[in-house]
Amino acid sequence: MTTDPVMTSPSIGKPSCKVPSLNVIVHSPHGRWNVCLGSPSFHRSADMCGIQFTPPEHMRHEQESRLLQLRFNYTQIVESVGEGVNDLKPGDHVLPIFTGECKECRHCLSEESNNMCELLRINCDRGVMLADGKTRFSINGKPIYHFVGTSTFSQYTVVHVGQVAKISPTAPLDKVCPISCGICTGFGATVNVAKPKKGQTVAVFGLGAVGLAAAEGARVCGASRIIAVDVNPRRFEEEVIVEMTGGGVDRSVECTGSVEAMISAFECVHDGWGVCVLVGVPKKDDAFKTHPMNLLSERTLKGAFYGNYKPRTDIPMVVDKYLNKELGLDMDKFITHSLPFADINKAFDYMLQGIGLRCMIHLDA
Amino acid sequence: MTTDPVMTSPSIGKPSCKVPSLNVIVHSPHGRWNVCLGSPSFHRSADMCGIQFTPPEHMRHEQESRLLQLRFNYTQIVESVGEGVNDLKPGDHVLPIFTGECKECRHCLSEESNNMCELLRINCDRGVMLADGKTRFSINGKPIYHFVGTSTFSQYTVVHVGQVAKISPTAPLDKVCPISCGICTGFGATVNVAKPKKGQTVAVFGLGAVGLAAAEGARVCGASRIIAVDVNPRRFEEEVIVEMTGGGVDRSVECTGSVEAMISAFECVHDGWGVCVLVGVPKKDDAFKTHPMNLLSERTLKGAFYGNYKPRTDIPMVVDKYLNKELGLDMDKFITHSLPFADINKAFDYMLQGIGLRCMIHLDA
Repeated sequence: MTTDPVMTSPSIGKPSCKVPSLNVIVHSPHGRWNVCLGSPSFHRSADMCGIQFTPPEHMRHEQESRLLQLRFNYTQIVESVGEGVNDLKPGDHVLPIFTGECKECRHCLSEESNNMCELLRINCDRGVMLADGKTRFSINGKPIYHFVGTSTFSQYTVVHVGQVAKISPTAPLDKVCPISCGICTGFGATVNVAKPKKGQTVAVFGLGAVGLAAAEGARVCGASRIIAVDVNPRRFEEEVIVEMTGGGVDRSVECTGSVEAMISAFECVHDGWGVCVLVGVPKKDDAFKTHPMNLLSERTLKGAFYGNYKPRTDIPMVVDKYLNKELGLDMDKFITHSLPFADINKAFDYMLQGIGLRCMIHLDA
Repeated sequence: MTTDPVMTSPSIGKPSCKVPSLNVIVHSPHGRWNVCLGSPSFHRSADMCGIQFTPPEHMRHEQESRLLQLRFNYTQIVESVGEGVNDLKPGDHVLPIFTGECKECRHCLSEESNNMCELLRINCDRGVMLADGKTRFSINGKPIYHFVGTSTFSQYTVVHVGQVAKISPTAPLDKVCPISCGICTGFGATVNVAKPKKGQTVAVFGLGAVGLAAAEGARVCGASRIIAVDVNPRRFEEEVIVEMTGGGVDRSVECTGSVEAMISAFECVHDGWGVCVLVGVPKKDDAFKTHPMNLLSERTLKGAFYGNYKPRTDIPMVVDKYLNKELGLDMDKFITHSLPFADINKAFDYMLQGIGLRCMIHLDA
């Protein structure tokens, strides 16, 4: 196995299989294959963008190397649908989403839960389709496994219907794709979970695209002051913020995945009312640690996954709000580069070096 | 200094000082001095009831032994008021409360904060009146210091006006005193902070009076199942609860002060929507520790102090609701013993042995 599987087999071609029940084949037509690469956070780019750019050491399954077809955020068009798929038809524009919504389980039906779907929640290990436990891709007879239920690194892919959000056909395909991951994750963490009130202060830890989207969320909510932290985590950060703000910020959103930043983000919120929202994906053996008195003095600690949006229910509405300019989000701020597929390695370099935020990759003719 | 100062100087007599501005002298008339002793939680009674029964090693100030006049929950009657006290008059019935409400600071004015008053929040170390930095008690020429702003272990005491809640004169003095501490703390943690919805499941860790009040809160909210945990904390508790409930409880309230119980209480709530509320007072060097993924999977961790009630604003209303039977709380369940003052050591024994919940102490004639 190559240690750089992302670079291999960019194009697999249309699958010849019968589309299984409840599955959808989506494709990126020529010239519209828009790939969005994650930008690094300040110290651990790979983990920070765990979903979008998974480093090789995370790609092993059951201690065994295997080829994975990764995913990137992009907009696609439905090519065909399997039996039982009633709310999508060929030609519909969709955003494949790494965490699904079956609309039937306790989580999907709960008014308190948003995207922890029992059937389709994010799964980095499964690697196969739910319907038959098989993969839909191969190269030279060797299987290529799916990744997080979407495997969008190809012109065609097969996904469970619960993992595509149908969006307006008028949405510009080369602008809205980042909404399906980092933007929603950060923006939603602020507007749906931290919920700062007008005039409050918000600290954002980590200024990759997720953190910047969180900061945009704070701006849209009317925050009076947004404090951005993007340096190597140091324990005195929270003290500096507490001093700057006369006791702490009203809300904080942590978008780094560094457990030190998580602790700082929590301990810099004001007692009595402060809310800290964790967004970044931690390492396997990390431990969040704080003195319980920090909680007893009426601080709240929450985590947000995918910005607390329900993928199929909410994302179409988010895209509509973007189109109607109600979202207050300027996607052009996030899309800093655009490259042909042949230059994809340059896009990875931009990401790893912290240059730019999102890079659109256009499929060559 | 005796190592058992609680037992000394039960009666100090009416202070002869002029009542300072913004202070109130309250007294317990003959025969109505009702003292309520905390009951132990399952493993650390002293810390659990930190406010109500402070063990000798917690009573040292600035590394120096000193006599403290402790506090117990009780109902009192205003004897006289100092300059600037406009909302109380002699004869009013009041509950002195260990955490105050000045009604002027950022916390008191915030709609998001409840009882972290900048001026009068709980303070175990100050030991003197705010007005002049002096104590109002002495014995044989030796000062006796105040404790948590109330020092109610005497027939007369001087307190800041911000630390008394004026209650209905019809409230039975020998029933409502426990409301001013443990009952509000536990009941409020559930109804004001955990806020279980009708039909949800609630786990309560620690079944002292605070935990039982939390469980009563869950009952009043319409919980479908209340799981009470009162054994030495073991790490598999959360696994048992998760198994019992098919994924975890909807809400948990921790009323022990054991950091292991806090972690179990948090890790036993359901992902997607679970809320854990910490109430118990931890040890100085405790650390709450959990894997950040437990938060990212959309669990919420909060702390509640004094049940999130505003002491002066809310407690009179709580007492009124109790009187009108709207609270759903039966105080008789909590008051398990009644003893004359001469038998106060028996009341301490009951507490330390975990017998009964609240013991009313009646002043001898």
